[in-house]
Amino acid sequence: MKMKLKHALLATSVALMAPLVAHAQDAEETVAAGTDVSEALAAVAALATEQAFVFNTLLFIISGILVFWMAAGFAMLEAGFVRSKNVTTQLTKNIGLFALAGFLYYLIGFNLMYPGDGWLIEGWIGAIGTAVLEPVSATLDQIDDIEYASIGSDFFFQLMFCATTASIVSGALAERMKLNAFFVFVIILTALIYPIQASWTWGEGWLDDMGFADFAGSTIVHSVGGWAALTGAIILGARRGKYGPDGKVNPIPGSNLALATLGVFILWMGWFGFNGGSELAMGTADAVANVSRVMANTNAAAAGGVIAALILTTVLYGKADLTLMLNGALGGLVAITAEPLEPSLGLATIIGAIGGIIVVVTVPLLDKLKIDDVVGAVPVHLFAGIWGTIAVVLSNGDASLSVQLIGIVAIGAFAIVTSAVVWFILKAVMGIRVSEEDEVTGLDKTELGMEAYPDFTRG
Amino acid sequence: MKMKLKHALLATSVALMAPLVAHAQDAEETVAAGTDVSEALAAVAALATEQAFVFNTLLFIISGILVFWMAAGFAMLEAGFVRSKNVTTQLTKNIGLFALAGFLYYLIGFNLMYPGDGWLIEGWIGAIGTAVLEPVSATLDQIDDIEYASIGSDFFFQLMFCATTASIVSGALAERMKLNAFFVFVIILTALIYPIQASWTWGEGWLDDMGFADFAGSTIVHSVGGWAALTGAIILGARRGKYGPDGKVNPIPGSNLALATLGVFILWMGWFGFNGGSELAMGTADAVANVSRVMANTNAAAAGGVIAALILTTVLYGKADLTLMLNGALGGLVAITAEPLEPSLGLATIIGAIGGIIVVVTVPLLDKLKIDDVVGAVPVHLFAGIWGTIAVVLSNGDASLSVQLIGIVAIGAFAIVTSAVVWFILKAVMGIRVSEEDEVTGLDKTELGMEAYPDFTRG
Amino acid sequence: MKMKLKHALLATSVALMAPLVAHAQDAEETVAAGTDVSEALAAVAALATEQAFVFNTLLFIISGILVFWMAAGFAMLEAGFVRSKNVTTQLTKNIGLFALAGFLYYLIGFNLMYPGDGWLIEGWIGAIGTAVLEPVSATLDQIDDIEYASIGSDFFFQLMFCATTASIVSGALAERMKLNAFFVFVIILTALIYPIQASWTWGEGWLDDMGFADFAGSTIVHSVGGWAALTGAIILGARRGKYGPDGKVNPIPGSNLALATLGVFILWMGWFGFNGGSELAMGTADAVANVSRVMANTNAAAAGGVIAALILTTVLYGKADLTLMLNGALGGLVAITAEPLEPSLGLATIIGAIGGIIVVVTVPLLDKLKIDDVVGAVPVHLFAGIWGTIAVVLSNGDASLSVQLIGIVAIGAFAIVTSAVVWFILKAVMGIRVSEEDEVTGLDKTELGMEAYPDFTRG
Repeated sequence: MKMKLKHALLATSVALMAPLVAHAQDAEETVAAGTDVSEALAAVAALATEQAFVFNTLLFIISGILVFWMAAGFAMLEAGFVRSKNVTTQLTKNIGLFALAGFLYYLIGFNLMYPGDGWLIEGWIGAIGTAVLEPVSATLDQIDDIEYASIGSDFFFQLMFCATTASIVSGALAERMKLNAFFVFVIILTALIYPIQASWTWGEGWLDDMGFADFAGSTIVHSVGGWAALTGAIILGARRGKYGPDGKVNPIPGSNLALATLGVFILWMGWFGFNGGSELAMGTADAVANVSRVMANTNAAAAGGVIAALILTTVLYGKADLTLMLNGALGGLVAITAEPLEPSLGLATIIGAIGGIIVVVTVPLLDKLKIDDVVGAVPVHLFAGIWGTIAVVLSNGDASLSVQLIGIVAIGAFAIVTSAVVWFILKAVMGIRVSEEDEVTGLDKTELGMEAYPDFTRG
Repeated sequence: MKMKLKHALLATSVALMAPLVAHAQDAEETVAAGTDVSEALAAVAALATEQAFVFNTLLFIISGILVFWMAAGFAMLEAGFVRSKNVTTQLTKNIGLFALAGFLYYLIGFNLMYPGDGWLIEGWIGAIGTAVLEPVSATLDQIDDIEYASIGSDFFFQLMFCATTASIVSGALAERMKLNAFFVFVIILTALIYPIQASWTWGEGWLDDMGFADFAGSTIVHSVGGWAALTGAIILGARRGKYGPDGKVNPIPGSNLALATLGVFILWMGWFGFNGGSELAMGTADAVANVSRVMANTNAAAAGGVIAALILTTVLYGKADLTLMLNGALGGLVAITAEPLEPSLGLATIIGAIGGIIVVVTVPLLDKLKIDDVVGAVPVHLFAGIWGTIAVVLSNGDASLSVQLIGIVAIGAFAIVTSAVVWFILKAVMGIRVSEEDEVTGLDKTELGMEAYPDFTRG
Repeated sequence: MKMKLKHALLATSVALMAPLVAHAQDAEETVAAGTDVSEALAAVAALATEQAFVFNTLLFIISGILVFWMAAGFAMLEAGFVRSKNVTTQLTKNIGLFALAGFLYYLIGFNLMYPGDGWLIEGWIGAIGTAVLEPVSATLDQIDDIEYASIGSDFFFQLMFCATTASIVSGALAERMKLNAFFVFVIILTALIYPIQASWTWGEGWLDDMGFADFAGSTIVHSVGGWAALTGAIILGARRGKYGPDGKVNPIPGSNLALATLGVFILWMGWFGFNGGSELAMGTADAVANVSRVMANTNAAAAGGVIAALILTTVLYGKADLTLMLNGALGGLVAITAEPLEPSLGLATIIGAIGGIIVVVTVPLLDKLKIDDVVGAVPVHLFAGIWGTIAVVLSNGDASLSVQLIGIVAIGAFAIVTSAVVWFILKAVMGIRVSEEDEVTGLDKTELGMEAYPDFTRG
């Protein structure tokens, strides 16, 4: 921001151009010495490569910021869907989990997920070590992969996916879980569970070798978060009063649907980075056209999810249901995430609409099973995520149904087993559930001693 | 996001560079064969063209995301300006209309608006058909227009403008309109009314032939939404109790000014994409400098609108009025939208300030006419939109006042007539207004059975 | 947005390429005439320069939008941290100050801050005059600095920093200050105080000559806002009832922690533009890799701040404290702002964590001094800003501790003296504090006659 800095940067830039400029300036001499057109063509190729690097890195930066923003979306969605007596706790969880995810992914997650040639167990468990970025003002030979993007941007982008996985868990377990136990779970999830299974596909591990296709993570991000949430919800048990002894389900309405709606708009916006950035390149005409296909399809799927939920709830219940429309949008988004590039706009709309239908149908199903998922995270992220991973075969000729199912089952099994182990250990060691009295009083008073809306009278 | 994918993409990228690389590698041979410098220059030109394509497409992607975000802005603004008993309904309208707009614009709107050479009625009514994007990983000869931007990005960007038009309508008609009737109106608006009149100018129809100038849509987007809202507000009638029998106006304060303010900040932010993206190009020095002029002018106009409203309300009423300052910002933004490029910063500030003044003056005027516009959509989007469309002649030498007026009147007449027909048909067929009892109870309970803030006691 | 415009723009683009295309087309002739490879190399260099200009300008545009967004973050944070009876006033301050900052920075601030060769007093006080952008569709020779970025984008970006400085002040002085007096202070701050001291470093004035290093403004933006806030808080005095006669501190909880949390997420997001854009370039591989380093480090520091505050409040008070975690995030962000490029991810985390610790420790310290800073602006922006400015020497070999201290003291002294003079004049001329009665009633009713949440019963 300071002018002098600017000049320093320009100097660097000029340095990179120096061979070209030298050529241009010493033209006659050069030609006399036998310079030929191949050098000019090499210069064009070098410029094209560097520009593609800049574009790709920029794609990761923009997309990383958008996926960061999803953390705010989850926070608002969950703060809106819980009762006012638990809002502060939910907000604390969301800002806390994002910070922990960022730290743990730096400390261990990134290298565990992208081991390169340094696997601990080839194809299954990556490398141990902290993330290291390229040096400041790296020269071209210090750039790790000039045909890809800077490590910093890659790390920044991938970190946000890790945090998203953790965000998915917090909502399902709201209103009765201990804060500290949740944070410990987040540490294990973001340091180990997420990166290890993600390495199998995105780190070029064994699932990738099989050809498992999950463009931006319907399974790798959303289902994993969903499985962890489901496992936790079962082990934790339902909120007091949610299910009557006679099997009656008592709805517990969220305290602020304006915040919840804002949360969904934020998530929808952030998803453009989530899916668009996962194209991984935009430096050429075909790559950027692909990114724009992904954007258009992502939006179409979300719209399909909303419309399906609107129609279905109107048909089933005689009234549109805002919370299911909101979750329908998310269901559509999760569903398209495994393959947002190949489908036509029409197919993307249908994939999203089915995602929305799945949400509307499975929310009451979970209640029948007395599994208390406060925000609908399991229907949205797990069930629609499974659907999306299967739907890849509808448009991606390289994907096979059997491999998709293997991926879903393998990652699911890993997520269930590891999550369950952690939940049970936490339950034994520190307890994961607040006391009945605290639950009735509300976690904001008992866990934090701080109310979210102290000025307003509660009805 | 998966590494293998990355390599596939790089392969594509490398494929594009192949001729260059081949040249570079086979240098001696090539020169021997008589290669000359014109090939190198052609390579530079080709690279420049492709880079401009990438930049332009990126501009549409970024801007499309920002204009998407405006949907959230309208949702928050309107949720903040209605009473708490109607908040869920207003949120439902906003997420629903955006999804419907996205679907309808794909199904019919896009081709109707941009018929190319395929007009149904030359210059007046476009082509029928769904939007089709470029193929996945399109080769250069499959790219529709390498000197413009990808279809996917263009579609994505234009879709958001269509949705914005619908968002404008929902606020004005709040607190007494039936939800389903509103959604049917949105379908007609986004599938037919908006795209048809937009094709006249932006689709290169008859108004464009005349030279009508509307950079980002003061008339084409904002006034059209405003006319539809005004027509609807008149046909629908005012809210119960808003106007006393003695001509007295009873203010009905909004329930959450924090949300309303958030909505305006969101809209202001989104407007940088709305106006900036409408420059349509940023791949060259002059184009990107123009985009930045648009950004600076857009901000200046919004600031002018706020300051004008602050001063004017302080002078008129002795107190600053937050809701008029918020709408003043929007009035300034709408006013600069028809020509955000040509004005100096000073002129942009003045154009915006007059937009703000128009809002402050016409809000009470509508009340005198007993037209009940809940959020001030008509002053902001229609009246300031007309002003902005006229103000084009202040800085754009190619624009003529008479043509601007023809555009305003022609588009206005079309929007009024088509909207009125739809509103009257809806009124006759399904009814557009809820019962008096439901209106008093609040639409959230009667239309949706779901309150926005169930935990809080209503005063 | 209109097709014809598109063609005009393409024409411009083609014009720039004309010499190249001509070369390519007239290849045989050209070669015959003796064209040599140096022309092709010059064309490559010219293209690289123009592309870098486009990238740099785009960086400013994107970053400017993100920093704009911080204004919304401050508005939500402050609206959430004040009592519900003062929310409308706080919102009014925030939208008003942003508009005033935008106008004043155009009118006088920009040239005062970046005088180029036109200093009024060399190195100390810049030039007087309004900001003027490049002409519309500027030719290459009309571009002010083809090796930097367009003036429009630079102005747009820098304006947002000026507004941020004003945003910092408004929160600290909440709940007892007169609205109009605040606006007058903002005018002086954004027109004179901020730009003059900023010119010393970023305008290449005397502090820059000494080598003072402040990458994105820990001191120049945040401390200046913090000093103005501290000075104002002392002169204004504490809120009624905040400090008991026996030295007891009565906590006055904020009315809406969901909004406050949203505000912090918005600020965190905006900070990516604040710090990332301050790299000032992204057109080459090294520059964009630097931008991504800045992004990753900025995020790491914020995470460090949150985690430090979480641990420290749990240790000190036995419970996590959401408001201190939120301010811890901001403290971490402010701390990394003076040097977000050079540190490793680990060091960035530590710098941020210390920023968070400073906030947790100094919030009660201010209370001991009976300085009533409603939102914690002084700990966050001033104390963490000083720390960050000193911490530059930990990683930046070009910075010296003594010069950093000189910068902190000089800018601090200037900010304190000028702010104090303005506060005292305002106190004498128009009064800066509302009456006791008005303070008890709440500023929304007395200053504005408009409540933020009129539907809800206050507890």
